[in-house]
Amino acid sequence: MSAVTRRLSPVPFTAVSITDSFWAPRLATNRDVTLPAEYAQLQQTGRIDAFDLSWKPGMEPVPHYFWDSDVAKWIEAASYSLATHPDPELDTLLDEVIAKIAGAQQPDGYLNVYFTVVAPEQRWANLHVHHELYCAGHLMEAAVAHHQATGKRTLLDVMTRYADYIDSVFGEGPGHRSGTCGHEEIELALVKLYHATSEERYLRLSEFFLNQRGQKPSVFAHEFAPGESFDTSYCQDHLPVREQSEVTGHAVRAMYLYSGMADVAGETGDEGLLRACQRLWDHLTLKNMYLTGGIGSTRHNEGFTRDYDLPNDTAYCETCAAIGLVFWAHRMLQLTADSRYADVMERALYNGTISGVSLDGKRFFYENPLESAGHHHRQDWFGCACCPPNIARLLASLGGYVYSLGDDGVFVHLYVQGEGRLRVAGQDATLRQQTDYPWDGAVRLTLGLAEPATFALNLRLPDWCAGATLTVDGEPVDIAANSRQGYLHLDRTWTGDEVIELTLPMPVQRVYAHPAVRADAGLVALQRGPVVYCLEAADNPWPLHRVVLPRDATCSVRYAPDLLGGVTVIEAEGLVEVPGDWEGKLYSATPDTLQPARLTAIPYCTWDNREPGAMRVWLRET
Amino acid sequence: MSAVTRRLSPVPFTAVSITDSFWAPRLATNRDVTLPAEYAQLQQTGRIDAFDLSWKPGMEPVPHYFWDSDVAKWIEAASYSLATHPDPELDTLLDEVIAKIAGAQQPDGYLNVYFTVVAPEQRWANLHVHHELYCAGHLMEAAVAHHQATGKRTLLDVMTRYADYIDSVFGEGPGHRSGTCGHEEIELALVKLYHATSEERYLRLSEFFLNQRGQKPSVFAHEFAPGESFDTSYCQDHLPVREQSEVTGHAVRAMYLYSGMADVAGETGDEGLLRACQRLWDHLTLKNMYLTGGIGSTRHNEGFTRDYDLPNDTAYCETCAAIGLVFWAHRMLQLTADSRYADVMERALYNGTISGVSLDGKRFFYENPLESAGHHHRQDWFGCACCPPNIARLLASLGGYVYSLGDDGVFVHLYVQGEGRLRVAGQDATLRQQTDYPWDGAVRLTLGLAEPATFALNLRLPDWCAGATLTVDGEPVDIAANSRQGYLHLDRTWTGDEVIELTLPMPVQRVYAHPAVRADAGLVALQRGPVVYCLEAADNPWPLHRVVLPRDATCSVRYAPDLLGGVTVIEAEGLVEVPGDWEGKLYSATPDTLQPARLTAIPYCTWDNREPGAMRVWLRET
Repeated sequence: MSAVTRRLSPVPFTAVSITDSFWAPRLATNRDVTLPAEYAQLQQTGRIDAFDLSWKPGMEPVPHYFWDSDVAKWIEAASYSLATHPDPELDTLLDEVIAKIAGAQQPDGYLNVYFTVVAPEQRWANLHVHHELYCAGHLMEAAVAHHQATGKRTLLDVMTRYADYIDSVFGEGPGHRSGTCGHEEIELALVKLYHATSEERYLRLSEFFLNQRGQKPSVFAHEFAPGESFDTSYCQDHLPVREQSEVTGHAVRAMYLYSGMADVAGETGDEGLLRACQRLWDHLTLKNMYLTGGIGSTRHNEGFTRDYDLPNDTAYCETCAAIGLVFWAHRMLQLTADSRYADVMERALYNGTISGVSLDGKRFFYENPLESAGHHHRQDWFGCACCPPNIARLLASLGGYVYSLGDDGVFVHLYVQGEGRLRVAGQDATLRQQTDYPWDGAVRLTLGLAEPATFALNLRLPDWCAGATLTVDGEPVDIAANSRQGYLHLDRTWTGDEVIELTLPMPVQRVYAHPAVRADAGLVALQRGPVVYCLEAADNPWPLHRVVLPRDATCSVRYAPDLLGGVTVIEAEGLVEVPGDWEGKLYSATPDTLQPARLTAIPYCTWDNREPGAMRVWLRET
Repeated sequence: MSAVTRRLSPVPFTAVSITDSFWAPRLATNRDVTLPAEYAQLQQTGRIDAFDLSWKPGMEPVPHYFWDSDVAKWIEAASYSLATHPDPELDTLLDEVIAKIAGAQQPDGYLNVYFTVVAPEQRWANLHVHHELYCAGHLMEAAVAHHQATGKRTLLDVMTRYADYIDSVFGEGPGHRSGTCGHEEIELALVKLYHATSEERYLRLSEFFLNQRGQKPSVFAHEFAPGESFDTSYCQDHLPVREQSEVTGHAVRAMYLYSGMADVAGETGDEGLLRACQRLWDHLTLKNMYLTGGIGSTRHNEGFTRDYDLPNDTAYCETCAAIGLVFWAHRMLQLTADSRYADVMERALYNGTISGVSLDGKRFFYENPLESAGHHHRQDWFGCACCPPNIARLLASLGGYVYSLGDDGVFVHLYVQGEGRLRVAGQDATLRQQTDYPWDGAVRLTLGLAEPATFALNLRLPDWCAGATLTVDGEPVDIAANSRQGYLHLDRTWTGDEVIELTLPMPVQRVYAHPAVRADAGLVALQRGPVVYCLEAADNPWPLHRVVLPRDATCSVRYAPDLLGGVTVIEAEGLVEVPGDWEGKLYSATPDTLQPARLTAIPYCTWDNREPGAMRVWLRET
């Protein structure tokens, strides 16, 4: 078996413009509303000033050991924003925050507010719980983002010093200790830092942290009292990473781990890591993923339970977990150029990630269930505030998920109106998409070339689409004959004058879950293109568990420009059970009767943006 | 408004024989297998010898503060058995156990193993948690039962001494303290002790303990650390008992409280207590009770959640809670002579209580969910072993639930083949039932009278039955014209030669849940007579969530003499979804197809007596 070679490299978000009606307004809101609102929350809750190290015992609030990561993810998001939308005020604000962080760094390079002012004696004492290396990882990602956006080394230098210190503490060599973080993150962050600095020690340290998992006894064992039980699978410590085949435990941790494994596999050619990632991917996406791309079936462990256990109303589906799935999918896609990864990435992007933020950009879901009796609503902030800055950094860098380049040419993973600036066949080129995707499946692609060039254009054929067609200057292309791993492969000499028209038919699809998914037995969901739909009380004034969608019900679509920022809704001739006489009865031999009900389904990602009410993705079918 | 007068008094179980094919074998097994098996468990786990007070720090096992109650309930059950089935060995064994208990009584009358040898300094220190008065209550019930069965005062004297001591500690008077038990039980026990001894102080003390609930601040408040939050509704301490209208908290505690309230209302004529009981009854039975008579929707608080929240697979439905519901229903029935209470009592007796013990009498359910994926099975015993001796005492005294006497004559609440010995119109009489109930609804009743007597015979008209008919010596009786609160009232001069034939038609009934019960939306259950049915994997080799029972499916019944001790099964022409090609898919646009499947439903109470497998009461309907 040959070593792994990464097939693709993403076209960076800085080279991709997005001008559509779906994402562009969300990206503008992210920039104009979410980033300032999150900064205000960080400041009001003391997270920013905590870096002044002025906390003393007895003061409230007490900094939490994961606070640093909230600030870090905001810096990362703000830096991405700065990279595409220069903003001197934001630039200055970032400088100020970074100066505070730099000031909190200890003489030895260590940097963590909690373990400097609150519990200094506990430095590295409980890696299983304390998120120390996790916080370091997020600060490293922030440092790389800030450096790339601004060219400044202010945070990057701080974080390489910290990384060097961590590298002096942990590792195989003499005088180094074992251990890894209970919450993965530093693994993928060190690979980013390696890319930014070309310092190979960071890559080796990442690999070391990966390899620490699954030891017998666990590297965390000494952190527990004798006889105290702990579930090693909660933080994916049950097996060495290359032997893992089933997703376990906390879903966000799992996604960050697998992302780190994919990163290291891509750098080192470690086939064992890639194979493990592929097994884990199958286990996740074939047995443990919601239709929305949400993952994590229970609040109990914020993660995975049993195969096919996908309850809808108690689904955890943390926003961060769906984002983590996008990260991992994107990495697997670069490694393999296989569209199956892009399919899941798209599913999560259009559904389970962006449901995490309101359309006005100010309120956030931590949990994204697929059914609600009406009591689940977004909040301004959370005590554990991982999700808000996570969705902000995803959106601020969304363009990076659209295109890749490789030996096989240009890859289009996502259909989004806008333009990518690419280097192909030795020249700077552009690739422009014109489309109303995801509301319409017609995509017109045009190239901008200085001179004719020979290269392949690879257009993703989404898994949800049957019957895609394509023409180049009106000439049909045989799709089946030109498909490679889910991409339509168009290898020719392009002049730049061609008009490439891809048509992805988007009928309303009735979706069914695998027979083993007990929670979805007898139920159907509606999907159109990549968008998963739901019924919300605002449009459907009946108890949603009393609504039935007959299998032969007519479904039609309508673009509603004034609804929820402009969405295509699905309208269906459904039925609703009308209560009979239930006075004095809890059980009865008389069934209620069904009456026609005109149902309106909205994109799942847009629910809970109007008056609070119930919501349901999976509907009863007859 | 007039004060409460208790309308009926039960005919004691000692005057009722049961000779049917449903209960009689269970009662024999309870006597021959369950009682010895439970004694063995009590002994093996150290609960009996704990009364020797020989425990010293460092010894294992450490007695638990509710151990005394497990032994007490077994004594109560064994005494009931002795009362109807003399057994010198059991009599001697009871004497031995009681001697140990008597030896554990302290000079001041106090009696509790844990707070004598393990934590003597905590006597009465944490009434909210410690179950001290609860244990006392169960020992009082045991003492009364033993005295009534044997005429011996050995345990009764011990417990009156203890009761007198408790009465010297708690109460309104000078030198007495406030407080009541976090787990109700002593309230109803003190009323039993009052009946056995005619000592009115015990009734007043019961009333005192009732009245302690719902104070502001709570009588438990001082047991919590400053700032520590506790949910007063967990132990029904959120409101004064006469102001309560909604069932809350731990279901067993609630049932024992309401039973005590009904007891005191019956003794003192306290209308406020009765009205509260009636409101609580409606709230329980119209919004918070499973079809099986099981109660308690979640493991979290072992109790009630929100109205109509009745999930099937995560139902708690503790065996003790259904038993407690029988206790409360029986008391409400005596107070009111209203059959609604007997209807629920019957529902719980035939379904949610006796599901708690295996047909062989050796294994027990603590939780009785209405759906299982196959992982829920009875156990030999539990660390918290309240349920096994509770079901034993219920079964050993089952005859006491069949008949009552009152100013309005004889009441037949349950149809069970056998005989009741009654005192009516100044003479000793018998009332004999011949029936195959619950498998058949024909009941032949005959009276044994020394001479003609004028009195009313009141026959319950079950809520599940439409179209009951009755003849006396072949002459039809107009049921509608002679109904009183759900009883057919036959007031005449009886010679004893009459043949009274009641016919209760028992078609298979399809049952639906109230529209607000989300968990049962689109589902149907099968019931026949008082018996709730379920599908079990042993008879139905398909994933039960894939089974569909069309609304027009033919259902037939068949008595299966060799199955599960002899049960009537329901056979139905159902459907099952046959999986299509799901290779590599978790979601698909292709629905599975339905194929005919011959379904066999068994009585819910008999499930998990064969090979372990899935079970489901509520079935998908089309």
